[in-house]
Amino acid sequence: MSKNEIIIGVIGAGRIGKLHVNNLKNLQNVRVKTVSDVFIDHLGEWFETSGAEHLTKNYQDIISDPEIDAILICSPTNTHTTIIKEAAAAGKHIFCEKPISFSDEETLEAFEAVKKSGVKFQIGFNRRYDHNFSKVKSLVEEKEIGDLHILKITSRDPAPPTLDYVSTSGGLFMDMTIHDFDMARFISGSEVVEVFAQGAALVNPKVSELGDIDTAIISLKFANGAVGVIDNSRQAVYGYDQRLEAFGTKGSANVKNETESKVEFLSEAGVKEDKPLHFFLERYNDAYIKEVKEFFKAIKNDEAVSCTFKDGIMAQRIAMAAKESFDTGKPVQVELLDYVSIK
Amino acid sequence: MSKNEIIIGVIGAGRIGKLHVNNLKNLQNVRVKTVSDVFIDHLGEWFETSGAEHLTKNYQDIISDPEIDAILICSPTNTHTTIIKEAAAAGKHIFCEKPISFSDEETLEAFEAVKKSGVKFQIGFNRRYDHNFSKVKSLVEEKEIGDLHILKITSRDPAPPTLDYVSTSGGLFMDMTIHDFDMARFISGSEVVEVFAQGAALVNPKVSELGDIDTAIISLKFANGAVGVIDNSRQAVYGYDQRLEAFGTKGSANVKNETESKVEFLSEAGVKEDKPLHFFLERYNDAYIKEVKEFFKAIKNDEAVSCTFKDGIMAQRIAMAAKESFDTGKPVQVELLDYVSIK
Amino acid sequence: MSKNEIIIGVIGAGRIGKLHVNNLKNLQNVRVKTVSDVFIDHLGEWFETSGAEHLTKNYQDIISDPEIDAILICSPTNTHTTIIKEAAAAGKHIFCEKPISFSDEETLEAFEAVKKSGVKFQIGFNRRYDHNFSKVKSLVEEKEIGDLHILKITSRDPAPPTLDYVSTSGGLFMDMTIHDFDMARFISGSEVVEVFAQGAALVNPKVSELGDIDTAIISLKFANGAVGVIDNSRQAVYGYDQRLEAFGTKGSANVKNETESKVEFLSEAGVKEDKPLHFFLERYNDAYIKEVKEFFKAIKNDEAVSCTFKDGIMAQRIAMAAKESFDTGKPVQVELLDYVSIK
Amino acid sequence: MSKNEIIIGVIGAGRIGKLHVNNLKNLQNVRVKTVSDVFIDHLGEWFETSGAEHLTKNYQDIISDPEIDAILICSPTNTHTTIIKEAAAAGKHIFCEKPISFSDEETLEAFEAVKKSGVKFQIGFNRRYDHNFSKVKSLVEEKEIGDLHILKITSRDPAPPTLDYVSTSGGLFMDMTIHDFDMARFISGSEVVEVFAQGAALVNPKVSELGDIDTAIISLKFANGAVGVIDNSRQAVYGYDQRLEAFGTKGSANVKNETESKVEFLSEAGVKEDKPLHFFLERYNDAYIKEVKEFFKAIKNDEAVSCTFKDGIMAQRIAMAAKESFDTGKPVQVELLDYVSIK
Repeated sequence: MSKNEIIIGVIGAGRIGKLHVNNLKNLQNVRVKTVSDVFIDHLGEWFETSGAEHLTKNYQDIISDPEIDAILICSPTNTHTTIIKEAAAAGKHIFCEKPISFSDEETLEAFEAVKKSGVKFQIGFNRRYDHNFSKVKSLVEEKEIGDLHILKITSRDPAPPTLDYVSTSGGLFMDMTIHDFDMARFISGSEVVEVFAQGAALVNPKVSELGDIDTAIISLKFANGAVGVIDNSRQAVYGYDQRLEAFGTKGSANVKNETESKVEFLSEAGVKEDKPLHFFLERYNDAYIKEVKEFFKAIKNDEAVSCTFKDGIMAQRIAMAAKESFDTGKPVQVELLDYVSIK
Repeated sequence: MSKNEIIIGVIGAGRIGKLHVNNLKNLQNVRVKTVSDVFIDHLGEWFETSGAEHLTKNYQDIISDPEIDAILICSPTNTHTTIIKEAAAAGKHIFCEKPISFSDEETLEAFEAVKKSGVKFQIGFNRRYDHNFSKVKSLVEEKEIGDLHILKITSRDPAPPTLDYVSTSGGLFMDMTIHDFDMARFISGSEVVEVFAQGAALVNPKVSELGDIDTAIISLKFANGAVGVIDNSRQAVYGYDQRLEAFGTKGSANVKNETESKVEFLSEAGVKEDKPLHFFLERYNDAYIKEVKEFFKAIKNDEAVSCTFKDGIMAQRIAMAAKESFDTGKPVQVELLDYVSIK
Repeated sequence: MSKNEIIIGVIGAGRIGKLHVNNLKNLQNVRVKTVSDVFIDHLGEWFETSGAEHLTKNYQDIISDPEIDAILICSPTNTHTTIIKEAAAAGKHIFCEKPISFSDEETLEAFEAVKKSGVKFQIGFNRRYDHNFSKVKSLVEEKEIGDLHILKITSRDPAPPTLDYVSTSGGLFMDMTIHDFDMARFISGSEVVEVFAQGAALVNPKVSELGDIDTAIISLKFANGAVGVIDNSRQAVYGYDQRLEAFGTKGSANVKNETESKVEFLSEAGVKEDKPLHFFLERYNDAYIKEVKEFFKAIKNDEAVSCTFKDGIMAQRIAMAAKESFDTGKPVQVELLDYVSIK
Repeated sequence: MSKNEIIIGVIGAGRIGKLHVNNLKNLQNVRVKTVSDVFIDHLGEWFETSGAEHLTKNYQDIISDPEIDAILICSPTNTHTTIIKEAAAAGKHIFCEKPISFSDEETLEAFEAVKKSGVKFQIGFNRRYDHNFSKVKSLVEEKEIGDLHILKITSRDPAPPTLDYVSTSGGLFMDMTIHDFDMARFISGSEVVEVFAQGAALVNPKVSELGDIDTAIISLKFANGAVGVIDNSRQAVYGYDQRLEAFGTKGSANVKNETESKVEFLSEAGVKEDKPLHFFLERYNDAYIKEVKEFFKAIKNDEAVSCTFKDGIMAQRIAMAAKESFDTGKPVQVELLDYVSIK
């Protein structure tokens, strides 16, 4: 890209859409021209201080705006592939929140559209950009831990979402564990080839009436021979529990939780430290900023994005395999993607 | 028991037999009369300072000695049930190292013999007597963590055993993970009803030629609805890794590794602390002492033992189910024991 | 202040002046109009991207600019009081880096000038705005630790400054410990009434030829009866060591060092964690931002500043007393300020 | 010593005397023949299970018993030097609790008596035998931390002693800090040449009526140029706080507190760990055992003791200097001992 400034449109102004717009305000050489959302009446106050220039109910205003270079898709999952295809056809670079869709077919169609158009496409696996996890990634890649044998991921939310949210979320594996599936691939540098999922609706039994669960243990087998396990809960009363351990022939690298302060308080009741940071906004804010910066850098320098369409597809396939495993009570193989790299 | 002193015979003077004899030397009101082992030529020097009185090649000298109150079975696993049946018939109280046997049938036969004779029988799951794990047990039992949802156990040895050892060990699940299966039952207070095991010979590929593995992830489902996972490796280069996490509706209790010192060293290279204690002798010595004390207390006061025959049977059945799961690639149900409590 | 935007002039574009300008660039409703420095030839490249509008060799361009609301004094200490008096006379609000001066008389003259003019004056004790230390401040204030008995501060730099720097720094107590003296007053909520200082040039003996030291232990007695101690070194090879402990009748609150990551690495060599963050730029960047925000808030709302002229004077007096104690080998009383609060 | 067994007499059966007798019961080749105490009526029950053979009101029964090889002096401080002189004259090896006396003259007289008789004499500074502190000692000695610059010792009791105890204790410095003074010499490998003490009766103001204090900060200057500080409190509500930091040119070694378990509990209220171990019995029991073992080893092999008469004298002189410093408000020089080594 020859010009210096990237002009952005953001589709969807829910929790994650607002988060991105708020972060973009502080970035150099980025201009948020238009934000769209199907419901805009309640957005007035936020929009005032958002730094964005236009607010519209119609995302086509963004797609059809020749000045806009790139779009961020933060709308509900079931709208993603349609928007991706239209945006790709219009030559817009695309940053898309996870998951791409709930269907492998639709995802692959969108993938073809992107491939054909040649636009950049980055999927929003923000945790890859966390300083702790990327440090472990390096330790694994540089063989500091030797050969990876066991990968363990703990990922627990502080409080369960509403039942309304659950009913349209695509289920625990697609909505929440998908981040952990991506971390498993990212840290190991290998594909997940088999998955076995156990779980139940232990936090709220009503979740099972919606065909979903809120507590899970998912065993993984990697192409490189390593094994792994993810454990999830929708409710860790002590905060957002985000830990990881990569164990190998030469040692083990662990990520412990981040806390608000480094203050330790000793009293008759014991020694007390801070809980883990409350939730993703607190825990991963720097990572959210870093991921869009990387996206913009890829656009400017015409480089490969750091989190690709393939990464989106594979995490999605593992999530589907996990769901099938849970439903059938059996381990399920994950179909690998015959992938032709797109820049 | 009316008399004050308990007279002991120890069958098997390998690593674990010696460990027990060494510990017994410092206990009050306990007298080790006889130690037997099939190979005694090399034991002379150790025996000198062992505090034991007689050394014999023939364990029948112990079984038939009317003065001996109780025996500790520390011989190879394939001798256990025969000795148990003979000892029970001779009216000796029995402390037996894990596992009881490699066969459910033989184990149940031994169980019947013990039941009939009315002697005390305690199985050597020493980790139950560790101060850390028993504290977590209390936190779970007293519902300090609320209802248990997820139980995680990490159990890794510092260095792999010889291939000779592996070939007669009964395999990873029966030899090593059996401790973790017992911990799963102990901490949760619930039965393991399903097990799914993944693993490979990653530390030493030759292990697979013996039909065994050295690295494993085992998923568990409990009768009370909770889920669990155990991860094992035969080689953690940084020491004996023995951690556990019990996660529930009101919080989470974690056991971290014990270390040799509380010294922290800061230098240009980073902040360094001690590795976990090297292996089971260092990590669990207090627990080994406590378990035999509890056994003697049960004998003296004619009380129920703290780790029962049933505990031995069930851990063994989970190990067998894990092996079957690994062999078939499918989750396996664990057959529960229709158990009539014996005092 | 009725208008929304505060217009700023920054005097002195050394390390700390640049730091402030860089931070101001990202603040809302703040405009850095002019930066002055006696040497500007080498500043071109930095100035380009600084977000500031004008660069001048003459700080009078700032003092005399009617559009400028507030100035940040980041020039060498020996210029502070002159600039303060001129800025106060010109009606500019003043943020001044520590120490105010090397002389109690000059400082009090500047104080009178500020009092007379009625401008805001804030002194740059950035550590007050650190999230960890302010949390301990709250725990002390709210009597969570009961009555304070012992206050301990560790403050060590990662590497010594040049001898050139040392020769004009005012000495260890005035240049470095002054921050700790302020923390002692801030956390305790009490005045330091006696100080006893021991120390030596242990890191670099040449420092003693300049009449200074680089290693010190300073004992404190507080007006409220508590005791305290500060230890300093100009060279902690493992990083910037910034710890604090407030011990009282009901418990103790400790601040541990901040680190770059929460990654722990276990290997045969031991368990390794990150060193403390390297130096003040890394450790206190958020605090530097917060202190100027608070300054601007005080201006806008015509409120009392959060770190007052008195705080500057008292820290300076304690530093002078510490120097006298070190020179005479005796404890020295600190003269309290008969202070009339200025808003 | 040619014979294998050492026969012991223990003078004084208060808290510390009982502790030693209880520990001796489990040592090999040690026989506690006689225990003396001026009050023996209440000792019956304890004596029953103590493993000691005789109980007497008259310590002369021990001094005059030709069978007894060595005595442990655990009686009140004001009886120490008389007993030492008598025991030395009778050719008994002597282990003496700290402090030797409250008077430098009396201590030197006892020293001369010991020197003349040639018996072994060990002073009871148990902390030297703690695994943590001795590890730091090694790190300092082997220059792992480079040259020592700063030594910090925190030593706080969990609860204050009775006023009765305080009135005969010799004061905080002689009773409690004396251990820290010894640690300062032990860890640094250098003599303390100057001391400055600040403090107050903050825990219990009545303590000041007895001429004592319960909270203190003591600054130290070492012969090798390093500086140090000790902080004391008679009441740390969270437990026995025993920490130490040795800071030098190449790094820093810290001893953190020991805890009962390694269990961490996370809940809505925060992350909680165990308090430090309650008091000296819990914290230093292994060290108490190790120190007498070392004493017996020195006797058997006719080797130098590991904690000498000189160590007793010097700690006492630092305590006296600290008292003088507190009383006069000035730093005080410590008179070094012109010491002729005695084996």
